[in-house]
Amino acid sequence: MTLNTFMSEAFVEARRALSVGEVPVGCVFVYQGNVIARGANEVNATKNATRHAEFICIDQILEYCRNNGLLAEKVFPEISVVVTVEPCIMCSAALHDLRVKEIIYGCANDRFGGKTVVDVPQVVNYSLKVQGGICADEAMELLKEFYKGENPSAPVAKSKR
Amino acid sequence: MTLNTFMSEAFVEARRALSVGEVPVGCVFVYQGNVIARGANEVNATKNATRHAEFICIDQILEYCRNNGLLAEKVFPEISVVVTVEPCIMCSAALHDLRVKEIIYGCANDRFGGKTVVDVPQVVNYSLKVQGGICADEAMELLKEFYKGENPSAPVAKSKR
Repeated sequence: MTLNTFMSEAFVEARRALSVGEVPVGCVFVYQGNVIARGANEVNATKNATRHAEFICIDQILEYCRNNGLLAEKVFPEISVVVTVEPCIMCSAALHDLRVKEIIYGCANDRFGGKTVVDVPQVVNYSLKVQGGICADEAMELLKEFYKGENPSAPVAKSKR
Repeated sequence: MTLNTFMSEAFVEARRALSVGEVPVGCVFVYQGNVIARGANEVNATKNATRHAEFICIDQILEYCRNNGLLAEKVFPEISVVVTVEPCIMCSAALHDLRVKEIIYGCANDRFGGKTVVDVPQVVNYSLKVQGGICADEAMELLKEFYKGENPSAPVAKSKR
């Protein structure tokens, strides 16, 4: 599968989040060419402000490792994180701590971005490969649709659901 | 109970972490004058680099809320986080997201601190009360003991266990 295919799967998650009133950010974790974790924001459903898509996937990876007799510290460094929006400062720090292989994201996170707003790699003194701008417009459209709020009849909103 | 009493409870957790080979950081969450969550680093035990003391406590609070029919978004804003070392950038961002009442910490975290190294409050555009320097020397001694590593017979190490 190609990068765009993986990003498409992340968008499936993001749209699912939007449909249930969550901030539309979706994520998949790719290991050895396969998606082994997928998630979206669950902040509202869980009333837990830390349940971002990336943390949902991190927990799935740990379960995957337990179920398959794998060591998480060997698996994370082979994982590509594909996420529709640049990880926030919290998630970026977590992904650096976990030493994932790379982060590939859609649009920048101008408010809380772990690279755009704060240079997390510099803070933690460790750089992993980060590539942004993949399907950025589509990612931003989803965010705009969410923050537009009470206007479900807008053309953009309709076409995205 | 006083602040120093709560910090003493956090140190109990930190020393427990040290005794099992974890980075010695301990934390308690105080709600309406009572400790309702306590934890220490579990990074090595869980092989999960995100299991810092603060995240352990966050999960306990969510369980506490479920068990007592309380809304987490009402409880977190009344919680004082008492932690032996300044929260890292990841934890600080999470605690700000959760809108805890205040953070009280021991020694500064010169490498990854969510205030010392990065100004998380400025990034998230929200400030909560943060007070550092409570029993800072003791907190730093524990860290030094851990990073000293393979010298369990050193006088400081013995007296701390």
